[in-house]
Amino acid sequence: MILENIKDPAAIRKLKQKELDLLATEVRKRIVEVSSQNGGHLAPSLGAVEIAISLLHSFDPLKDRIVWDVGHQSYAWKILTGRNERFDTLRRLGGISGFTNRDESPYDAFSTGHSSTSVSAALGIACAKEHLRENNHSVAVIGDGALTGGMSFEALNHAGHLQKDKFLIILNDNSMSISKNVGGLQKYMARMLASKPYNAIKKQVWELSENLPENVRRRFILGAQKIEESMINILVPNIIFEDLGLKYLGPIDGHDIKQLCTMFRRIKRYMVGPVLLHVVTQKGRGYSPAEQDASRFHGVGPFESKTGQTICSGSESWSEVFGNSLCRIARENRKVVAITAAMADGTGLAPFEKEFPQRFYDVGIAEQHAVTFAAGMATKGIKPFVAVYSTFFQRALDQIIHDVALPRLPVVLCIDRAGLVGEDGATHHGAFDISYLNMVPNLQILAPTTSEELDAMLRYAAGYQDGPIAIRYPRGIAVCSGKPLKEFSPGKAKTIHKGKKIALLAAGDTLGLASEIWQKLKDKGHQPWLVNLISLKPLDEELLLEVGGGCQHVFTFESNSVIGGIGSRIAQILAEQACKVVNFGYPDHFVTHGKISELHDLIGFTADKLLADIEARLDG
Amino acid sequence: MILENIKDPAAIRKLKQKELDLLATEVRKRIVEVSSQNGGHLAPSLGAVEIAISLLHSFDPLKDRIVWDVGHQSYAWKILTGRNERFDTLRRLGGISGFTNRDESPYDAFSTGHSSTSVSAALGIACAKEHLRENNHSVAVIGDGALTGGMSFEALNHAGHLQKDKFLIILNDNSMSISKNVGGLQKYMARMLASKPYNAIKKQVWELSENLPENVRRRFILGAQKIEESMINILVPNIIFEDLGLKYLGPIDGHDIKQLCTMFRRIKRYMVGPVLLHVVTQKGRGYSPAEQDASRFHGVGPFESKTGQTICSGSESWSEVFGNSLCRIARENRKVVAITAAMADGTGLAPFEKEFPQRFYDVGIAEQHAVTFAAGMATKGIKPFVAVYSTFFQRALDQIIHDVALPRLPVVLCIDRAGLVGEDGATHHGAFDISYLNMVPNLQILAPTTSEELDAMLRYAAGYQDGPIAIRYPRGIAVCSGKPLKEFSPGKAKTIHKGKKIALLAAGDTLGLASEIWQKLKDKGHQPWLVNLISLKPLDEELLLEVGGGCQHVFTFESNSVIGGIGSRIAQILAEQACKVVNFGYPDHFVTHGKISELHDLIGFTADKLLADIEARLDG
Repeated sequence: MILENIKDPAAIRKLKQKELDLLATEVRKRIVEVSSQNGGHLAPSLGAVEIAISLLHSFDPLKDRIVWDVGHQSYAWKILTGRNERFDTLRRLGGISGFTNRDESPYDAFSTGHSSTSVSAALGIACAKEHLRENNHSVAVIGDGALTGGMSFEALNHAGHLQKDKFLIILNDNSMSISKNVGGLQKYMARMLASKPYNAIKKQVWELSENLPENVRRRFILGAQKIEESMINILVPNIIFEDLGLKYLGPIDGHDIKQLCTMFRRIKRYMVGPVLLHVVTQKGRGYSPAEQDASRFHGVGPFESKTGQTICSGSESWSEVFGNSLCRIARENRKVVAITAAMADGTGLAPFEKEFPQRFYDVGIAEQHAVTFAAGMATKGIKPFVAVYSTFFQRALDQIIHDVALPRLPVVLCIDRAGLVGEDGATHHGAFDISYLNMVPNLQILAPTTSEELDAMLRYAAGYQDGPIAIRYPRGIAVCSGKPLKEFSPGKAKTIHKGKKIALLAAGDTLGLASEIWQKLKDKGHQPWLVNLISLKPLDEELLLEVGGGCQHVFTFESNSVIGGIGSRIAQILAEQACKVVNFGYPDHFVTHGKISELHDLIGFTADKLLADIEARLDG
Repeated sequence: MILENIKDPAAIRKLKQKELDLLATEVRKRIVEVSSQNGGHLAPSLGAVEIAISLLHSFDPLKDRIVWDVGHQSYAWKILTGRNERFDTLRRLGGISGFTNRDESPYDAFSTGHSSTSVSAALGIACAKEHLRENNHSVAVIGDGALTGGMSFEALNHAGHLQKDKFLIILNDNSMSISKNVGGLQKYMARMLASKPYNAIKKQVWELSENLPENVRRRFILGAQKIEESMINILVPNIIFEDLGLKYLGPIDGHDIKQLCTMFRRIKRYMVGPVLLHVVTQKGRGYSPAEQDASRFHGVGPFESKTGQTICSGSESWSEVFGNSLCRIARENRKVVAITAAMADGTGLAPFEKEFPQRFYDVGIAEQHAVTFAAGMATKGIKPFVAVYSTFFQRALDQIIHDVALPRLPVVLCIDRAGLVGEDGATHHGAFDISYLNMVPNLQILAPTTSEELDAMLRYAAGYQDGPIAIRYPRGIAVCSGKPLKEFSPGKAKTIHKGKKIALLAAGDTLGLASEIWQKLKDKGHQPWLVNLISLKPLDEELLLEVGGGCQHVFTFESNSVIGGIGSRIAQILAEQACKVVNFGYPDHFVTHGKISELHDLIGFTADKLLADIEARLDG
């Protein structure tokens, strides 16, 4: 038995061809044995046995990172990377997961489960490696079904643009996916499978270049690739992947270990730019019942010192404060990168792009890809700040939950335009982000009330490595306190005024509104608490219980829907206290367009209208 | 002035070439005039003036539906479709919106604002027209930037697969998008622009076919298209859109009304299958500071009567109950269609697919597209049921908010696998759907506790036309009460036991758990309320206030995160009552894999553990 003797996957690299083929048989037997007992994704994993073995034979799985899309093709990978003995605990409580998982094994480069994330993740890893001056490969293994997810296309498009070397996508085409007949792409791939001459051309180029000295080989290959491109257009059908800027290789037999290893060796030695290798496999195979070259830091600006610097003058927008702060942080922390989705100017990142062109990524209108791409980078210790408007982060909820929060990756979500945005109206208001993010485990949510708080939160986020942080700030001119904050600690609210009987708790930009109401209540003889929540998740539960315990009325303020907003969480926390909690925020209907002040008046979110409501409740 | 005299856009169809050109100048002047005052998306709209005029000249905008992606290119469209006089209220409170909006004008086929939704929406409309035996065109106008959004690719892929006639995508390529240099696709399109011979070939085919009699023309064109395809591969660069199964035409000058109208006329007369017309425009143009053949209803099954039928036997899964109910409904309601994302079997839709192949859509792993595609169909009065697992609906949040709830389209979201799913683990639990959907305005959320309730809800949803409905049900065997429900009314909870002091409020499948606790409390001498919430949104606030007003302790139960769950909403509603509200649900961390019962034990979500917690609180 070969499998039994493989304690370390590095041993696979020393195996001979015959042993590798035997190993495939043994692994396949083990998969069938356990899956028949525990259930699980049998067929996809049986189809990818030879791919897993060939990858482990040709690459170093701890240095060259391999991302398995969905993860349900990864059983062979698990068995071969130190999890054979525990494999019979598959999908059982306390046992190994049915998907790849970073917490489970250092060999799992990315935690997966949902489809179509691998290309984004592997591309993020590739870029991170460049930043870190690591000289290894990044590989995504993706099925033909997962390729139809739009996120894959976003990532292919981005990969074609970036033209990174040592970036390989293995398209595991079993021509079946989950459902058979979906998509123009499937028909297209079937046509491509019918053509053969492409490999012949590639082979000739390789054979020629094999005898060239190292220093001229790269130039020769680049030249040959150009000639090849013209020839290909005549000889074979359109290669969609080449159109997007990737080198296409294949199709080859995904059950032929020898061919796979030869191909991997050639790709490693000769290929320039991103490569897509088209591999044809059979689902359920063998079981008949189932058949950073680092950034060039040029243009370092004048602000170098850590403290005492001017953060704002009172005329900058929140976006500008964000962009300027991030530039300062990036000057000192080379691992900081900025990612945006076609909104470099809008999010205030234009100065960052100018100063750090190598550390700035605009992925196009592709918020899903932006988030998972960031997750990929974060796996390598790069610190990505993803700046996207609140309304557009709605597009990336699954990626935030599944690719960032679940694996606790330290991605920073910079939520611009949180709250009503004004003239762009109902489609663009950032009215929901607290509601759709607050339930996400492992995520911190912060809401600054001044430029200085935003700056301190960004510095805190840059140094935080244990999970994701979301920072939400509104459209418009930022509040400038003139007092820089040395540091920020999550989970602590800021009591502005201690009080009695009544408490006003404000989140982010509603502090101004709450302060105005506080003053009016004080003028009328009340003595309310005024608290700046700052940290929405974790909440300062200690202070909340202190305030709630001593008050009859607690009023919360937020620029978000009252349903599922931070007020509802506070009502939940204080539900066993004697105080009555009333939440103020946006109503349960879509808000139209107009000036923000007009809209606030329309929905009753003004000091006078809320004061009237509060007084009626105090009397009641 | 020509513009002043256009009260009805149909007048544009009668204008001569010179008048159309003059009209463009007048419209452009009007856009600049208003945008300079009110702000807004000036440049994109200036680039699309001739496209709007040519569309109105060549198509019937109330029968042929035109979907403008994002909507920010649509100012000319608005001015020309009855909104010229009000155009100076653009983006002002009470004035017209900066985007296309179905509530604003019958000429706006789809409400937009976020990017990349138009192809999905127009494809939905095209399929709906087929069902309705309407013989008109569906057109999407999409910019090159929006094309990079993954959702567009999901839709192109689906369009290539469906091969619908009279479906036109106009790619408005201004080669700039929002940011300049993003994506392999942009480079590819630039290469395509450099090639010319393609149009020449197309023109010859058209000229030949123009003289053919109607009955042989379609066959001739189909044949010619095949020959053409082979020629094209030799003469011009790869046409990515043709690879996906769309006919590609262009590039043509998007500011040449004559050429545009000729092209539209030819497309209407001669083209078979989906067409992509590549149009080149200049952003800010002219302002230098800115420049259904219906479904074949075969195989109608034996269950025709409305009442008295067997809904379940007690051995069906919730998915099976859903699939069987939907089949019964579809037999009586020809407007019902089912949509899934590569999960026909998993969601119980396999019998529907078999019985109604023409009314079944599997869009591939493309949840975003699935939802917006459904929205498109719903705009035409088709009733789409979108069946997707809870965990995968996370991918479509923005589409649910923006494309379905905002325009109040009667799409039914069938949320399968809501709650813990067991062995698939953390990535696949449906632990968040109440949290991320409850704040969505206009959306009803229902949670059945029996097969009969699910059946009644589905019948209710099939007849409801005023907005979207989400129905969530768990994995596993469905509860069968044996008592069919005649009808379902939203906003009414069901009191199972009236009580005193203590209330147990259960959502969906947690009713079993709550009933068990109810019995144990009763055995100990308590007399608790037991309420089946059924309708999570709207909630039965009247009953809640009655129960809350009379109790000291209210306990809620749900198979969802406690944060943002239905319990938090109930805590909010009862916050001014004297009762203490405690929410039971899933904890604020990701739950691992294992049997559902094991996981419930792990997180303390069992009758015994919750009873202990409740008793401690009653004593406290």
